[in-house]
Amino acid sequence: MISINSRTSLLTDHYELTMLQAALHSGAASRPSVFEAFARRLPDGRRYGIVGGTGRLLEGIANFRFSELELGFLEQNQVVNRQTLDFLANFRFSGSIYGYAEGEAYFPNSPILIVESSFAEACILETYILSVLNHDSAIASAASRMTSAASGRPCIEMGSRRTHEEAAVAAARAAVIVGFTATSNLEAGLRYGVKTVGTAAHSFTLLHDSERDAFRAQLESQGRGTTLLVDTYDVVSAVRTAVELAGPELGAVRLDSGDLIAQAHEVRALLDSLGNENTRIVVTSDLDEYAIAALAAAPVDSYGVGTSLVTGSGAPTAGMVYKLVSRAGADGQFVSVAKAAKNKTSVGGRKYALRRRSPQGVAVAEVVGIGHRPQDDGDDRALMHEFMIDGVLQEGWTGAAGVSRAASQYQESIAELPSSWRRLQKGEPVIPTEYESHES
Amino acid sequence: MISINSRTSLLTDHYELTMLQAALHSGAASRPSVFEAFARRLPDGRRYGIVGGTGRLLEGIANFRFSELELGFLEQNQVVNRQTLDFLANFRFSGSIYGYAEGEAYFPNSPILIVESSFAEACILETYILSVLNHDSAIASAASRMTSAASGRPCIEMGSRRTHEEAAVAAARAAVIVGFTATSNLEAGLRYGVKTVGTAAHSFTLLHDSERDAFRAQLESQGRGTTLLVDTYDVVSAVRTAVELAGPELGAVRLDSGDLIAQAHEVRALLDSLGNENTRIVVTSDLDEYAIAALAAAPVDSYGVGTSLVTGSGAPTAGMVYKLVSRAGADGQFVSVAKAAKNKTSVGGRKYALRRRSPQGVAVAEVVGIGHRPQDDGDDRALMHEFMIDGVLQEGWTGAAGVSRAASQYQESIAELPSSWRRLQKGEPVIPTEYESHES
Repeated sequence: MISINSRTSLLTDHYELTMLQAALHSGAASRPSVFEAFARRLPDGRRYGIVGGTGRLLEGIANFRFSELELGFLEQNQVVNRQTLDFLANFRFSGSIYGYAEGEAYFPNSPILIVESSFAEACILETYILSVLNHDSAIASAASRMTSAASGRPCIEMGSRRTHEEAAVAAARAAVIVGFTATSNLEAGLRYGVKTVGTAAHSFTLLHDSERDAFRAQLESQGRGTTLLVDTYDVVSAVRTAVELAGPELGAVRLDSGDLIAQAHEVRALLDSLGNENTRIVVTSDLDEYAIAALAAAPVDSYGVGTSLVTGSGAPTAGMVYKLVSRAGADGQFVSVAKAAKNKTSVGGRKYALRRRSPQGVAVAEVVGIGHRPQDDGDDRALMHEFMIDGVLQEGWTGAAGVSRAASQYQESIAELPSSWRRLQKGEPVIPTEYESHES
Repeated sequence: MISINSRTSLLTDHYELTMLQAALHSGAASRPSVFEAFARRLPDGRRYGIVGGTGRLLEGIANFRFSELELGFLEQNQVVNRQTLDFLANFRFSGSIYGYAEGEAYFPNSPILIVESSFAEACILETYILSVLNHDSAIASAASRMTSAASGRPCIEMGSRRTHEEAAVAAARAAVIVGFTATSNLEAGLRYGVKTVGTAAHSFTLLHDSERDAFRAQLESQGRGTTLLVDTYDVVSAVRTAVELAGPELGAVRLDSGDLIAQAHEVRALLDSLGNENTRIVVTSDLDEYAIAALAAAPVDSYGVGTSLVTGSGAPTAGMVYKLVSRAGADGQFVSVAKAAKNKTSVGGRKYALRRRSPQGVAVAEVVGIGHRPQDDGDDRALMHEFMIDGVLQEGWTGAAGVSRAASQYQESIAELPSSWRRLQKGEPVIPTEYESHES
């Protein structure tokens, strides 16, 4: 595993550390606490979300330490006092983290991540946890709608240039988890072992004296299985030139502009007439899930998706929050807590969750138990996994292995959703979230 | 300067390197080339954009090198051949880069960045350049509308938790350039020397046995100048408790939910009646430029902005592209080039730009010269600066100094725009972009 998150501890909000300071002062910093990350609602009209980022998050938490560099900054800028600096110098998360597996579907109020530790330890992880989960879950949730719309045709992630350069790596990772077959992002290949692909841009054609020269260079260098970009000048003549130079073994042609549906039909007919029945057609050009769905009846072999993927197709953040839901009082007894103020009400108490399934294995409800595990009716599936226990990272969630596991989890999760999960139009969550608040 | 971009060379698309390989094969890789980064249009209805990310980009390009780690990955995964690996092993950008200063306003087709080098060198920077400029310019452009709407009241950036953890640092940096007075993001403070602030969240109140205990702890630890969060339970009783404990020196109270306009009036009246005329009111809670504008008449002292800032307030990416616009042919003469295909037409040729100003110093047009510098009418301002010359980074653009310089540039740039730049409703760009294509 290539770790790049070598410094994560200052990827956080100033107030996490000033709260820590004040809680150390009052003595409440050591109170055993339970924090929960959840989304109050899904983005407008979405029917489900997909948890993304958990593996990346766990890698980052393992590196959440304060070295001389960070401590020096905090001291010099008087962010916190000496007592707090001493606490941070020795900080290493020693609590436990539970939650939904990466790749799992989630719904409003699904308890996606539970952090159990002292207030001090759980508090200072807040911003980092939310940054990772909110970004990666937004991408995974949007990307899932695209692979769903593609109905088995391969989707390729190619949005790096439309988002922050590090967000791009995370987006590629999230896309692969929900069924994208490859990414253009090389760093994602290096870090997570995901497949990378790519051929050429318009600049490559424009660089050469003629399209023919450019195609010849690419074919000689990359082999006849390459994908030639055929819309720099005139598509029909480009396809003819491509076939003339590459013959029937030409791998694919790419269309990146214009009316993709009409062009796909035209190019397919032309390729077939020239004997290139096996040459595939790749389309790119501002595709989103709706454009992919509209291309379902066109003779297209694969989709390259960029902007709409890395921007969450209209929902660039998942809107998750991280709330203190329970903490011990002076007597050591846990007390459920929740903000009472207007329009942001939360449900206090430690949560557990399972997906209620019919005897036929179809999901019917998200059942959240408050303070207890909900009863499994025999067909249900428990949703909470152990990620860290007493500061020890559990195996299998991080690195390339974590990505593979998340991809499997995703397939299992969507396979049991009611078929309405595939509907792109706005609607209600495909299953309701139900609380069980009695003690078992 | 704290550099974190130690590895930037794989933050790129696979096809940049396969294009390089094919161009090395054809020999065209060494052709002198000119690439241009520009936006064909502004996001829907926006009247201007603000260039963000240039300083960060230049830092990253200086670190754009291929070490054993990257080369090993590329070789093992057969991304490129031996000839290309040898080229990359020795790669260090040796060309020249010109462009709009960070913080400058831009318009459709403003030539924001010009890269002059061999095709090989300019080609492989494409993805990285676009990632940085598209992200940071989207944030700077949205954030500018917020400081504009705030009309001088301080705005604080606090959106880290709603975006990728590294994008959050860049967003904080971009916000400060366009007039945000501070950020919650500590890493941005460390890297760029920007001011960080923060106080406490609802969890801090819920942690304690009572709101009174929490306020007392915070006041004792942070001093009376702190900001108390007063909407965990009941705002009116929280304000009374806060004033009772802190007296007239209480710095500020924060409102994070409910009807902010009504509450601001209520809390202002209450504070005044209790003798706390100098206690400020800070509002947060899903603010965007429209909400800020709506609060203009409310007794609010500062705004904390999160989600809408880091997601570009509806336009999370700036939509810039990076196109080959000119390159030398076999005879060494430069030829303007441009893609001819449908709906993505570009204008070929090396660009220069100035902002045409009236004798009163008001901007009237963005003048783009193709192949020559447009004539300065005497009141105009040249827009292109030298960032790198023959591989040498020019001073003053990067690090904390670059952020300060960009913040000054921003103020200069908006000061000369027609007053319509402040309108939040959708409209045309505040000045037109005009091409001058004759040779001078």
